Amino acid sequence: MKILVINPNTTPAVTDTVAEAARAAARPGTEIVPATGEFGAVVIGSRAENALAAHAVLSLVAQHAAGCDALVLAVSLDTGLWACRELLDMPVIGMTEAGLMAGCTVAARVGVLTFGARMPQLYREIAASYGLGARLAGVHALDMPAEQAYSDPDGVQAAVLGGVKQLVERDGAEAVLFAAAPMSPLAARLQHLSPVPLIDGVAAAVAMAEAMVGLKLPRAKVGSVSPTGGRAMRGVGAELSALFARKPS
Amino acid sequence: MKILVINPNTTPAVTDTVAEAARAAARPGTEIVPATGEFGAVVIGSRAENALAAHAVLSLVAQHAAGCDALVLAVSLDTGLWACRELLDMPVIGMTEAGLMAGCTVAARVGVLTFGARMPQLYREIAASYGLGARLAGVHALDMPAEQAYSDPDGVQAAVLGGVKQLVERDGAEAVLFAAAPMSPLAARLQHLSPVPLIDGVAAAVAMAEAMVGLKLPRAKVGSVSPTGGRAMRGVGAELSALFARKPS
Amino acid sequence: MKILVINPNTTPAVTDTVAEAARAAARPGTEIVPATGEFGAVVIGSRAENALAAHAVLSLVAQHAAGCDALVLAVSLDTGLWACRELLDMPVIGMTEAGLMAGCTVAARVGVLTFGARMPQLYREIAASYGLGARLAGVHALDMPAEQAYSDPDGVQAAVLGGVKQLVERDGAEAVLFAAAPMSPLAARLQHLSPVPLIDGVAAAVAMAEAMVGLKLPRAKVGSVSPTGGRAMRGVGAELSALFARKPS
Amino acid sequence: MKILVINPNTTPAVTDTVAEAARAAARPGTEIVPATGEFGAVVIGSRAENALAAHAVLSLVAQHAAGCDALVLAVSLDTGLWACRELLDMPVIGMTEAGLMAGCTVAARVGVLTFGARMPQLYREIAASYGLGARLAGVHALDMPAEQAYSDPDGVQAAVLGGVKQLVERDGAEAVLFAAAPMSPLAARLQHLSPVPLIDGVAAAVAMAEAMVGLKLPRAKVGSVSPTGGRAMRGVGAELSALFARKPS
Amino acid sequence: MKILVINPNTTPAVTDTVAEAARAAARPGTEIVPATGEFGAVVIGSRAENALAAHAVLSLVAQHAAGCDALVLAVSLDTGLWACRELLDMPVIGMTEAGLMAGCTVAARVGVLTFGARMPQLYREIAASYGLGARLAGVHALDMPAEQAYSDPDGVQAAVLGGVKQLVERDGAEAVLFAAAPMSPLAARLQHLSPVPLIDGVAAAVAMAEAMVGLKLPRAKVGSVSPTGGRAMRGVGAELSALFARKPS
Amino acid sequence: MKILVINPNTTPAVTDTVAEAARAAARPGTEIVPATGEFGAVVIGSRAENALAAHAVLSLVAQHAAGCDALVLAVSLDTGLWACRELLDMPVIGMTEAGLMAGCTVAARVGVLTFGARMPQLYREIAASYGLGARLAGVHALDMPAEQAYSDPDGVQAAVLGGVKQLVERDGAEAVLFAAAPMSPLAARLQHLSPVPLIDGVAAAVAMAEAMVGLKLPRAKVGSVSPTGGRAMRGVGAELSALFARKPS
Repeated sequence: MKILVINPNTTPAVTDTVAEAARAAARPGTEIVPATGEFGAVVIGSRAENALAAHAVLSLVAQHAAGCDALVLAVSLDTGLWACRELLDMPVIGMTEAGLMAGCTVAARVGVLTFGARMPQLYREIAASYGLGARLAGVHALDMPAEQAYSDPDGVQAAVLGGVKQLVERDGAEAVLFAAAPMSPLAARLQHLSPVPLIDGVAAAVAMAEAMVGLKLPRAKVGSVSPTGGRAMRGVGAELSALFARKPS
Repeated sequence: MKILVINPNTTPAVTDTVAEAARAAARPGTEIVPATGEFGAVVIGSRAENALAAHAVLSLVAQHAAGCDALVLAVSLDTGLWACRELLDMPVIGMTEAGLMAGCTVAARVGVLTFGARMPQLYREIAASYGLGARLAGVHALDMPAEQAYSDPDGVQAAVLGGVKQLVERDGAEAVLFAAAPMSPLAARLQHLSPVPLIDGVAAAVAMAEAMVGLKLPRAKVGSVSPTGGRAMRGVGAELSALFARKPS
Repeated sequence: MKILVINPNTTPAVTDTVAEAARAAARPGTEIVPATGEFGAVVIGSRAENALAAHAVLSLVAQHAAGCDALVLAVSLDTGLWACRELLDMPVIGMTEAGLMAGCTVAARVGVLTFGARMPQLYREIAASYGLGARLAGVHALDMPAEQAYSDPDGVQAAVLGGVKQLVERDGAEAVLFAAAPMSPLAARLQHLSPVPLIDGVAAAVAMAEAMVGLKLPRAKVGSVSPTGGRAMRGVGAELSALFARKPS
Repeated sequence: MKILVINPNTTPAVTDTVAEAARAAARPGTEIVPATGEFGAVVIGSRAENALAAHAVLSLVAQHAAGCDALVLAVSLDTGLWACRELLDMPVIGMTEAGLMAGCTVAARVGVLTFGARMPQLYREIAASYGLGARLAGVHALDMPAEQAYSDPDGVQAAVLGGVKQLVERDGAEAVLFAAAPMSPLAARLQHLSPVPLIDGVAAAVAMAEAMVGLKLPRAKVGSVSPTGGRAMRGVGAELSALFARKPS
Repeated sequence: MKILVINPNTTPAVTDTVAEAARAAARPGTEIVPATGEFGAVVIGSRAENALAAHAVLSLVAQHAAGCDALVLAVSLDTGLWACRELLDMPVIGMTEAGLMAGCTVAARVGVLTFGARMPQLYREIAASYGLGARLAGVHALDMPAEQAYSDPDGVQAAVLGGVKQLVERDGAEAVLFAAAPMSPLAARLQHLSPVPLIDGVAAAVAMAEAMVGLKLPRAKVGSVSPTGGRAMRGVGAELSALFARKPS
Repeated sequence: MKILVINPNTTPAVTDTVAEAARAAARPGTEIVPATGEFGAVVIGSRAENALAAHAVLSLVAQHAAGCDALVLAVSLDTGLWACRELLDMPVIGMTEAGLMAGCTVAARVGVLTFGARMPQLYREIAASYGLGARLAGVHALDMPAEQAYSDPDGVQAAVLGGVKQLVERDGAEAVLFAAAPMSPLAARLQHLSPVPLIDGVAAAVAMAEAMVGLKLPRAKVGSVSPTGGRAMRGVGAELSALFARKPS
């Protein structure tokens, strides 16, 4: 099984992080095919940067999805999730979606930990859009940029543990999802110091993608995620145009 | 990997059905360990029967969980789901929970199909209890008892297709979950006749259980699903008493 | 009028507490018929213990409901509430359900006070299941086991007043419901020290049961709480089997 | 016990109807004190008429509440409910509030039946304001004015039964609340023709008021329904001014 | 364009405040026609006072609406909003409704600031009634009466800034709405000291009213806000009676 | 005042339609600056096409926003709404957002009419994301592509009236929003044939944008829509890079 793992951030180090997390979670025999964003933000950290990243995701999909069995969006805003589901004939799983679902099987309410004071609202919106707002215990943002996970790993670890503690004690979280690709490796590393399960969305997404590949569900022929039946797009590059133009098999 | 698949109905034919569905969905190397309810309803079809079945589930768990890696509740009311999560040190997945989650990764809104006019409200309540009420397109009940799946398979198939059609056209379902263990085998069999994916909850639960085993999440040490730390129970049989009395490792 | 008051905890002292509370609330002429759980937890304090207690409730109902006019569940998790409604031809009222409803007629938002850090989430789930989640100001758990109400009544009183204060000042509760059978007598005793009404669920349930007996509503003939029409149950004891087998009158 | 039963419609015949319904529901020893609106609509049938009626309710309360033990609002829009709770030191119960609560103890979802196409939205808003929107199966309006209950009782009965049928079969109602004071007597009269319980809000409110009187809950000293502590009002009549000026005891 | 700006408080100083705020916000050519409540509370500060004020609003409307193009309710409880919409053939806008809507176009979640500990619950109820509960970050009440805005403006300013800070830092508000007519002028005055937009509901309502006048939407002929078609009212004064009796044009 | 009106569809005829609608709604003195999408779908009709269009919107914004006072998104999916709010120092209004808000001031519940069976779910999601799901009466899709508004205007008009009728009679809509840019001109044209107000989102957005310009609210300095403070973007064109790199003034 080949799983395309897309990091729309334009930073290869983030891709390396999520690819490693994906490989650690994948079953034997599952190949991880990582891809890095070709344009946009170094590390997506705002609504506008995320809007652009959706295009970057679709461009990567158009180039790399052929031959793959599933797509994992290794970006914690699950950028372009439903657009990819509409375009592709394979399971598409977002790391935050999968992390929330996994969390909901071990915890009555899940806390979310991320970087940057402007981000909690976005995760509240995402959880609500999945219909899972009632399962969200709270969102806590570390007061540092995501990039610091690379430049100051020890400082970030301490902050992460403090954030977990706050989500558990103040918000009643019974599990904590790490909603930031650069935080992925910390879930396993810090688990023994946490009173609740720590969930790496990348690992959860790979496991969920493998599960969905096994279920072999077909595409819907009707409704909001069904194939469009071939659409002409202007000015978007040959591979992406071809993807949009494709007729349903 | 060994997965305990519990059917709290006291009908072995239902166990055979779900065990077969579980085996068809399981990966190579996953062993399915089926168990049948020892007391209670022939086929659970009411709130009171379901309340009793929770005890039956816990009794089966106390007898059969040792040596298993995960538990699948192959009963569409996900009977005893959170009680099992509290008692056991392994992933516990309900077939309707897993079916809804799988459905939510391929459809904006999921329809549910079941047997008997008294049941739709129960599935609305279950979906709401998972926080997924907003993702539920609707519930349609076939006007026949679940047992008819065995006595009149052809008639049931026609009714199922009619129900799917109604869920899609009237309620806007983009996938349909079969919420009745005896309906499990029909998902694959009727898929080619359906405009949307048909989801067998047993298969979804097995796949989700395998995924969760892979994630190796630990138990929470605090909160509403953490181990109780050993509790004395009166009059409930040695194995079940032992399960309640167990201290967390 | 005879009201069956069921305490599924296996501790007679708790039965005595709730029977006393019930008698204090009952009108002249109402007889309280108490019953104690025959198997299960000493004091229900977890999801699994509550799952078992539903069976215990049904067993007690099968033995004691004949000749009674209403059933009050004197257990703050309202264990087996809808199962009893389905089985019995009489009003069935849960103490937390009635307490929330009574609270909603005197307060815009109701706080809930209980014992034990693992319990608040369960009361959030119960309130939500009644559709009353929006009326819930918050849930506060005293950091002590329910049993302490008997062994250290003074310490519990001080803690209760502290909990009430927090629910009022932090969460905006305009009334506080005591969600723990052993806390029942404290509502009246501590009322003069509280800025908001303190509600004993047992008293509220008895009053609500008397009210519903007076309304003489018939059973629904259709839907999720209508009689099942007689069902065969295996291995559950003669009285309970008879209850399930009964045809609607 | 004396219960003030307020009908803010200016039609004495409606008062007679609700007083009779109240007396039929009241326990021996409960005295019903009816009062009719002194200004406003003949039968309240719109949002603006209801806004005016809130003043009429308060005026009646100022005149008649002294010496009473509870107040029942015998108007299906529960006009002035929370205003009365703030002003009075006695239980205040609305007929639709009580009817919904009673319904929620016998049915998973309650349907509401009323007169006039402009009214269903108001009952949806009321149920939502009580936090009970999720328990509402649907609202059906008979296409006739409420006054027709007096001029054409037979025609109204047939229409009521048709409305009940639609609420049960189309909307899944497991009980039906009559939300129109003139419909009160029909609940008992038509019950034997209905597949689900028919609830008269006036009867439910009287029973609930009696129950709340028995519970003897004190007023909150803080929060949105606590006494204001004496307020000066201009131009509203001596009795109403006195009611607003009253200091909490 | 003439906009009727109604202050149902019986305090002309409040009318002066809101009229000034309205004029400051109005476009050139828009005339503001202020009106003061003729009976009721000095400054509305409770549920019962607000219930009376709805009548006062309708009385003012009956006297002053003729010749106006729109109505703004310059009372932060939006008193009588939907009643006015039903009665009048012109746009009707509430200051809190408009303030929330304006806030929702600049902020993911809006905080509300008001006077008095009994009021936050009312604003939560109002926001919920508009369907905007999910956009409400929180409500903070200054612990002082609204009248203090006139007697101690400096003290109020300091308290307002403290309240804004709390809404932003504790509740995640991205804009703050001033929900109290006497606070109107402070929005512009304190804006430079606030980290988020401060919204004066009066200004927002005037702008929204001008916008709606421009859109020239007709009245609905059906539904809960359509004209009633002429209704007889007893004992409510000639102008108000005439307003209710009016047939739709 | 200059309002940038962006149509991210790559079809100039749609731009002409919305520019005309915008000009008809604008006050004297407001200049409409239309812009057409430079890449992407002819008429956006799917999730993936909408994801791409967000980039197109940002590109147009980067080129044309300078010198404008407000931005109107004349695309019924309000594509890139919050991204634009984060990037720009001016009011940004979406046509569906504004249409829903305008509708909510004249109707208790608003219906939405659009083209194509795959689209209703998207409008449900949009309304829910604005927190206005409870105000949505329903969504009806005409079974024809949006392009038909140009090729078969008469056929579309008849279908539109049928859709309005269904939203009113089946779903209880009290106003209907046209959620499709090509439908804009029909609102005014068909109004006299409709029982409820017909709302053109473009007109509503222009009026709302003018109102918000008048309110002169500043940007938030914190939170999820505050300026990012200058961010480096790779590979996205000079103007867009400059927009992202801009420091807050």
